[in-house]
Amino acid sequence: MIDEKKYKKIEEGDILFFKSFLEENQVDTSDFGITTYSSDATEKLSFPPAVIVFPRTSEEVSKIVRYCNENKIPITPRAGGTGLVGGALSIYKGVLLSVKNLNKIINIDVDNFQATVESGVINYDLQQELAKNNLFYPPDPSSWQSSFIGGNIATNAGGTKAVKYGVTSAYVMNLEVVLPNGEIIWTGFNTLKNSTGINLTQLFVGSEGTLGIITKAVLKVQTKPKEEVSVLIPFHSVADCAKAVSEIFHHNLNPCVLELMERNALEQTIKHTNENNIPLNDKTQAHLLVMFDGENQEELMISVEKLMLVLDKYSTDEVFFADNDTDKNRIWNLRRRVAEVVKVNGYTIEEDTVVPRAKLPELIHFAHQLAKKYSFDVVCYGHAGDGNLHVRINHPKYKNSYNEPEVKNILVELFTYIKSIGGTISGEHGIGLIQKEFLPIVFSEENLRLQNVIKESIDRNNIMNPGKSYLV
Amino acid sequence: MIDEKKYKKIEEGDILFFKSFLEENQVDTSDFGITTYSSDATEKLSFPPAVIVFPRTSEEVSKIVRYCNENKIPITPRAGGTGLVGGALSIYKGVLLSVKNLNKIINIDVDNFQATVESGVINYDLQQELAKNNLFYPPDPSSWQSSFIGGNIATNAGGTKAVKYGVTSAYVMNLEVVLPNGEIIWTGFNTLKNSTGINLTQLFVGSEGTLGIITKAVLKVQTKPKEEVSVLIPFHSVADCAKAVSEIFHHNLNPCVLELMERNALEQTIKHTNENNIPLNDKTQAHLLVMFDGENQEELMISVEKLMLVLDKYSTDEVFFADNDTDKNRIWNLRRRVAEVVKVNGYTIEEDTVVPRAKLPELIHFAHQLAKKYSFDVVCYGHAGDGNLHVRINHPKYKNSYNEPEVKNILVELFTYIKSIGGTISGEHGIGLIQKEFLPIVFSEENLRLQNVIKESIDRNNIMNPGKSYLV
Repeated sequence: MIDEKKYKKIEEGDILFFKSFLEENQVDTSDFGITTYSSDATEKLSFPPAVIVFPRTSEEVSKIVRYCNENKIPITPRAGGTGLVGGALSIYKGVLLSVKNLNKIINIDVDNFQATVESGVINYDLQQELAKNNLFYPPDPSSWQSSFIGGNIATNAGGTKAVKYGVTSAYVMNLEVVLPNGEIIWTGFNTLKNSTGINLTQLFVGSEGTLGIITKAVLKVQTKPKEEVSVLIPFHSVADCAKAVSEIFHHNLNPCVLELMERNALEQTIKHTNENNIPLNDKTQAHLLVMFDGENQEELMISVEKLMLVLDKYSTDEVFFADNDTDKNRIWNLRRRVAEVVKVNGYTIEEDTVVPRAKLPELIHFAHQLAKKYSFDVVCYGHAGDGNLHVRINHPKYKNSYNEPEVKNILVELFTYIKSIGGTISGEHGIGLIQKEFLPIVFSEENLRLQNVIKESIDRNNIMNPGKSYLV
Repeated sequence: MIDEKKYKKIEEGDILFFKSFLEENQVDTSDFGITTYSSDATEKLSFPPAVIVFPRTSEEVSKIVRYCNENKIPITPRAGGTGLVGGALSIYKGVLLSVKNLNKIINIDVDNFQATVESGVINYDLQQELAKNNLFYPPDPSSWQSSFIGGNIATNAGGTKAVKYGVTSAYVMNLEVVLPNGEIIWTGFNTLKNSTGINLTQLFVGSEGTLGIITKAVLKVQTKPKEEVSVLIPFHSVADCAKAVSEIFHHNLNPCVLELMERNALEQTIKHTNENNIPLNDKTQAHLLVMFDGENQEELMISVEKLMLVLDKYSTDEVFFADNDTDKNRIWNLRRRVAEVVKVNGYTIEEDTVVPRAKLPELIHFAHQLAKKYSFDVVCYGHAGDGNLHVRINHPKYKNSYNEPEVKNILVELFTYIKSIGGTISGEHGIGLIQKEFLPIVFSEENLRLQNVIKESIDRNNIMNPGKSYLV
């Protein structure tokens, strides 16, 4: 257990030290700044930092970290602030270190299909730049218009296209990291293969800022497929819909998107956005959103036809077929806005469960049983192709999961079940603050001990995002 | 630096302890056993262990490891013994722990596209079993007919299909590992995505037995593509051939194999195998071996045609086109046997260089300059699509790289150049014993320090494969 008392409180002298090498606007102790940076996109939590710093170079990051390490001041690294598990909340006050000024796209190496970027680059901005070279970077979390590459890496973010292209970890070739002692290292090499030493790169991917601060990344990118086609398939039964997800892969189909939305999710979003062009039959209980990409429409149509044959045995309504931009945007606008809409409607507690894909029907069934048992509303949607389902809870009494005993009971039951069917509690959001207490459900004591041993060996003073993720 | 004296020497009492819970044939101190297990496939090196143990269960592994840890006895884990860098050589004597009896395919979960295997399962045996379910496991190192899955994981093995499918790391979902303290853990979860805690799974992939002993693995598998087509393209210039490799990817071609062989490599292999059906024109200086796989021949032919258009501007000889099994086997037999043949012919020193793909022409050019400067013969071949080139050296005086000062000079020059163009010294073989001394060329002091800090935190007595890979 972390002892808060062992940390040094930020004093005027510390601020002066930061100001001795940073510009005025790189050190923020204003009420407005503190308020802004006291929360991220997680439920309704607030943890004000003592000071926010905005370094512009890796060397500035290094200087800040070295000072904090010597003085035992906790650091909370922060990227886009779009996290859903409280990973960027400064629970021990101290320094909140924002990488937003590390926002340069350093190089796009078209010949080697690599992009070198600073960690504060917004995912969307990188995509725009890559598109100019007919390239793309597959990981596209829902937050892509505001989340930073550094945060995507720190949480091993997924997105809608992971089913074909894989998650962030598959695209990180090499990282520049400022270690907790202030040293700057490159973790690996800019090569497609590497068996040189232990894999430090992947140790930092998904480490949620607990092992160091990612300052630069070399990312694998690839040529953009020329064509895409999307279909929205309404199922009469949620169980069928979940079952179909698994079956698709037995027919050599390779969709780049395979999302499941329960009726409730789509209905709320259609209402909220006044999107009247997407039909919603009374019988429909869930939708599958499937996308194929490739080199020509003909090839994609073959895949769609094959898909329809596979789904033939299920009871479905008329398929909405989007091969033009207007219709595609209609579907995608709905899918992209689900999270925001259901949150507005009271579904503030969001889980990020992931199970072996063929276990999806069981997971959805269990979530609804739980909702009945504990009298809350639930809506499920997400990246079904990866077995990654967002279970959202609208609890009549509680709007947070963190520190709410009744919600804790619900989650313990949900996660215990998930573990029993081979799954875990986070597929793409991370653990951060609010999921930490549930780790003993999915990890053995010895596994957690090992994670902590590694952390201690790298961050002897435990200054780097203390109290988050796996840290006991 | 490791102090050999701190280790306990194996005595009669230790052997008796092992025999107290292992069968007679699981503990080997015979001359034949010791001789057999004193070398692997690395050059001509010999390091006899004091005893070889063959545990049959994870619990037996745990018991052995716990005893060795308490008694400070070094353990050298060994899989198939096909390694090329001395990773399985027991340089401090002690216990050689073979996983060959951990050879069960525990489960093939067709619904979730996963296979659970023990670490002593031979890659080929797994492939045969998967094929019965129309599935396959993409990583196929040249040693696949005898190398074990555990060894493939410990070295992050590649193979010919990595260019499309990725290397071993992309297929390891979860590992059972016996830690140096004897505890048994599962590192992760059997899910396609996971953002739960730090990535212990990928920490063990490629760690060459230095952090623990892999006993079980859950592997991602996939449906087998129905059709394949291979083409062998003879180039008049090695530089052109290397340049073409990079260009192919700008045309939305997605080959599953993209291998380069210098004339010298193929010529030796053709002679050695009496394969007279593959034409070898006088003008030919290098070959590209390209394979496409997919769902139907038509689709593959479109890819081949596109490839031919891309290569049109290069000076090439007649393409050898293999769309039937006989011709495919001809080409593949040659490619698979290159390593063995050139080794027999005196090219005993094998390097495993990897660079950003577009840098291949420079790398090959440099290797030949070096050969002239130091008067040795060189032949280059390998996984060009990944930028991973095997540079093989036939040195008139030296047959090993390990401990040969003149060869060391050559390699220092080669590796320094490789580092300068963004590459590293191992793409798929690992570091083991013989590449260790070159690590300071490619890693910063702080990076190496970090690797060692992590090692020390996990293996406090440094019993697990000491003196290998990154260990200073």
